Amino acid sequence: MQIPEEYGGLGLSNTMYARLGEITSLDGSIAVTLAAHQAIGLKGILIAGTDEQKSKYLPRLASGEHIAAFCLTEPGSGSDAASIQTRATLSEDGKYFLLNGSKVWISNGGLASIFTVFARTEVVDKDGQLKDKITAFIVERDFGGVTHGKPEDKLGIRGSNTCEVHFENTKVPIENVIGEVGGGFKVAMNILNSGRFSMGSASAGMIKKLIEMTAEYACTRKQFNKKLSEFGLIQEKFCFMAVKAYVMESMAYLTAGMMDRPGFPDCSVEAAMVKVFSSEGAWACVSEALQILGGLGYMKDYPYERYLRDSRILLIFEGTNEILRMYIALTGMQHAGKILTDKIKEIKKGNVGVALGEFLNKLRDTMGRKVDYGLVGVGGVVHPSLQESGKKLEENIYYFGTTVRGLLSRFGKTIVDEQLVLKRVADIVINIYAMTATISRASRSISIGLRNHDHEVLLTNIFCTEAYFKNNYAMAQLQKYADENLDDHIKKAAKQILEKRAYMCSHPLDRTF
Amino acid sequence: MQIPEEYGGLGLSNTMYARLGEITSLDGSIAVTLAAHQAIGLKGILIAGTDEQKSKYLPRLASGEHIAAFCLTEPGSGSDAASIQTRATLSEDGKYFLLNGSKVWISNGGLASIFTVFARTEVVDKDGQLKDKITAFIVERDFGGVTHGKPEDKLGIRGSNTCEVHFENTKVPIENVIGEVGGGFKVAMNILNSGRFSMGSASAGMIKKLIEMTAEYACTRKQFNKKLSEFGLIQEKFCFMAVKAYVMESMAYLTAGMMDRPGFPDCSVEAAMVKVFSSEGAWACVSEALQILGGLGYMKDYPYERYLRDSRILLIFEGTNEILRMYIALTGMQHAGKILTDKIKEIKKGNVGVALGEFLNKLRDTMGRKVDYGLVGVGGVVHPSLQESGKKLEENIYYFGTTVRGLLSRFGKTIVDEQLVLKRVADIVINIYAMTATISRASRSISIGLRNHDHEVLLTNIFCTEAYFKNNYAMAQLQKYADENLDDHIKKAAKQILEKRAYMCSHPLDRTF
Repeated sequence: MQIPEEYGGLGLSNTMYARLGEITSLDGSIAVTLAAHQAIGLKGILIAGTDEQKSKYLPRLASGEHIAAFCLTEPGSGSDAASIQTRATLSEDGKYFLLNGSKVWISNGGLASIFTVFARTEVVDKDGQLKDKITAFIVERDFGGVTHGKPEDKLGIRGSNTCEVHFENTKVPIENVIGEVGGGFKVAMNILNSGRFSMGSASAGMIKKLIEMTAEYACTRKQFNKKLSEFGLIQEKFCFMAVKAYVMESMAYLTAGMMDRPGFPDCSVEAAMVKVFSSEGAWACVSEALQILGGLGYMKDYPYERYLRDSRILLIFEGTNEILRMYIALTGMQHAGKILTDKIKEIKKGNVGVALGEFLNKLRDTMGRKVDYGLVGVGGVVHPSLQESGKKLEENIYYFGTTVRGLLSRFGKTIVDEQLVLKRVADIVINIYAMTATISRASRSISIGLRNHDHEVLLTNIFCTEAYFKNNYAMAQLQKYADENLDDHIKKAAKQILEKRAYMCSHPLDRTF
Repeated sequence: MQIPEEYGGLGLSNTMYARLGEITSLDGSIAVTLAAHQAIGLKGILIAGTDEQKSKYLPRLASGEHIAAFCLTEPGSGSDAASIQTRATLSEDGKYFLLNGSKVWISNGGLASIFTVFARTEVVDKDGQLKDKITAFIVERDFGGVTHGKPEDKLGIRGSNTCEVHFENTKVPIENVIGEVGGGFKVAMNILNSGRFSMGSASAGMIKKLIEMTAEYACTRKQFNKKLSEFGLIQEKFCFMAVKAYVMESMAYLTAGMMDRPGFPDCSVEAAMVKVFSSEGAWACVSEALQILGGLGYMKDYPYERYLRDSRILLIFEGTNEILRMYIALTGMQHAGKILTDKIKEIKKGNVGVALGEFLNKLRDTMGRKVDYGLVGVGGVVHPSLQESGKKLEENIYYFGTTVRGLLSRFGKTIVDEQLVLKRVADIVINIYAMTATISRASRSISIGLRNHDHEVLLTNIFCTEAYFKNNYAMAQLQKYADENLDDHIKKAAKQILEKRAYMCSHPLDRTF
């Protein structure tokens, strides 16, 4: 879909790719098969390949004659992608690499004829020292020594092919290196970062379908002489699904639109936020949809149990939500952190005269100056019907600035190890981005008079209110001495459990020591 | 397990039954097969059968020679059990009933030789009018006309047999009526109410096993040169699982203990609370356990995906959590409601002089008098290390009393239709019961010096703090004019969606009306 037309592709923008994802997502296995091919399998060639590589490989990948797969993960290397052990050794004549190693959970691994493979290679450092660095390669199955295991037996996306792929003395010509030798880690991250945003529209597409299917049921099925649709608890589920779909769409298309801007700005943090929000939202919505059907939802005669099984992978693959939350929080705080580091350096140099006040002001500039950002009120860009949501967003941003400032001065660089803190930071950032996306979209919908814009306002206000209170709670959790902050308790309890590798409490029926 | 020894059973108390449930739950299919037999299938005979019925049926049900099933649900009658259409017609000679109808999702339906079946029967009212009422019957497969469909293909508990059971002119002798003719609905509810509490210990047993399995993995697997167990986000998951298991155990054994008291007091509300909390907790914990394993968790080589599939049914069967929340809230408020009704009657009679103050005081007596209930401090029953949790519980109870008073005066009897309100009330009640159970258990553990009681204190304080803030939020949602209260928005949005039976927003890429 995104291969340029000159190579036989559709040349779609990220926005258009997202739009199609709403449809292909209706079958999880098809969505994963397609994504493994075009969102990660061939993406390296697309974004970092040479013209020769593009001409040679893209046309048959565009036509579907060749299928691609992305080979990064190994048994010992999941989230920690930099620790892969697969090795590529340059031949004595310097014309090819010999590739050896095993990759696991490779989508399309049994079908693909073209693999993007990451392997360690020896690279001479600028200091003249030999170092192991990761390099990306285009590997054809026909190069030889490529085998694969039997398809994995999975909870869901069972129609997609997942298997181990082994490389044994596979000869890869040096012209098949993607990007620079030793520059493979960046290539891998760029590929993964470039595809994640599409999970938002894909999940939204699925939820919109679920709403239609379950609404049909809820408006037909009667219990207690009422249609299910008349019960508040059932209504709440529909509102829940619609809000999630609306937020996902809003975040996904805002992100895709930014990615399509001239110069293709880096939107990897935004994409990660879309991924975390939409994977968790999809998982929750499918479960609610299933619940509307009651016992029927649990049966294989209906599609809900399959949606449930399929959607569970979303929280794991393309970067686990745990890793992505760390990425979101740390990247988001990097700028603020740099200012902090510079100041600390100055202070160390003896420039203590650089007043703390100035430092704090600078941080405040970064993080948000005052509660009134001019979003609302006269001359504000937010429509009056969204004014309350706009104010909530402004307030959240302001106090978030204060909160992050406090965190940076409390932890300094060691904040990278404070995962519970980072998680709460990430959750707030995600909500803030989501509030921004929905308020912005609903404002536009009103101003250009889109059909049902009142409904958009309703969903936006519901989401922003809930997010506002969640953010306030999370910010309270980030205060060192707040009652809400249980982090030390949590760590202590977990440490005790993990030391014993077991639940530690005596049984309630125990009577003596 | 609970059939008395005189009939060949083990004669276990509810507490001992709960204890065994911790072990049988390690396989969901076995747990359901056993529960369908003894917790519902034969329970009617046990709690409402005559001595003759007990002597005739229980011995072979105890030995396992006969397997029992519980036949209530029908295609058109799920949560609304009173609407069943299966009919039992008394023969002209008055010696037997002819049973006709179809039941669905009958666990053990294909294996059972003894069925507890609910059917409509014509009953002469006290006014001499013919009325349709529900009656419970013991039906032997050998009575004839009993057939069953093929086993249902389900998401989980796939080792348990679930199928339709059809009765066609099945002759049931009148001595096989359980309880009174026309008294079957109460029998059905008593059976279901009596078994629900056991989901608490069963879920706790499963989570304790999950903790062991995942801790083993987390303490072995390395990423980024660290064991997974060293990462805060992984630690949080272990604490989460341990807290849930601790709360479930505490609630389940408190409830079972009360049920075992002389006179066997009605603990159906408590049992429903255990069921809702533990089903949702189990579902959440299994998903977290799976997440710790990452991609491995998604594979059928590991047991996590099976636990996930199996545990999803817990939110649906034995009363959906939606129905049970309504039951919890309405039953819980019934006493307060009665006082309200009596007062209104008096006021209507002209006794307006009955001061509002007195009325409020009486309600306050019911709901909670003041923030200090004497749980903590000198002479308090709560150990000093749990003092903060005790205070939080007291405060929650006090404001909950105020809140419910406000709700009853705002809605009166129409509160039965306010499902969103009732849901929030139920959630608070469940948390209050859970706080009570954990504080009480941890206090006892300290006072008798149980091993690791400090760990219990830690888990209790973590849970009570989280529950306290959740309760406060839910109580804010129950205030008519609070920002947190989105109920009208939610209902409005849902109504629009359900009218169109579709997601209503224009697409973000739409440009014009």
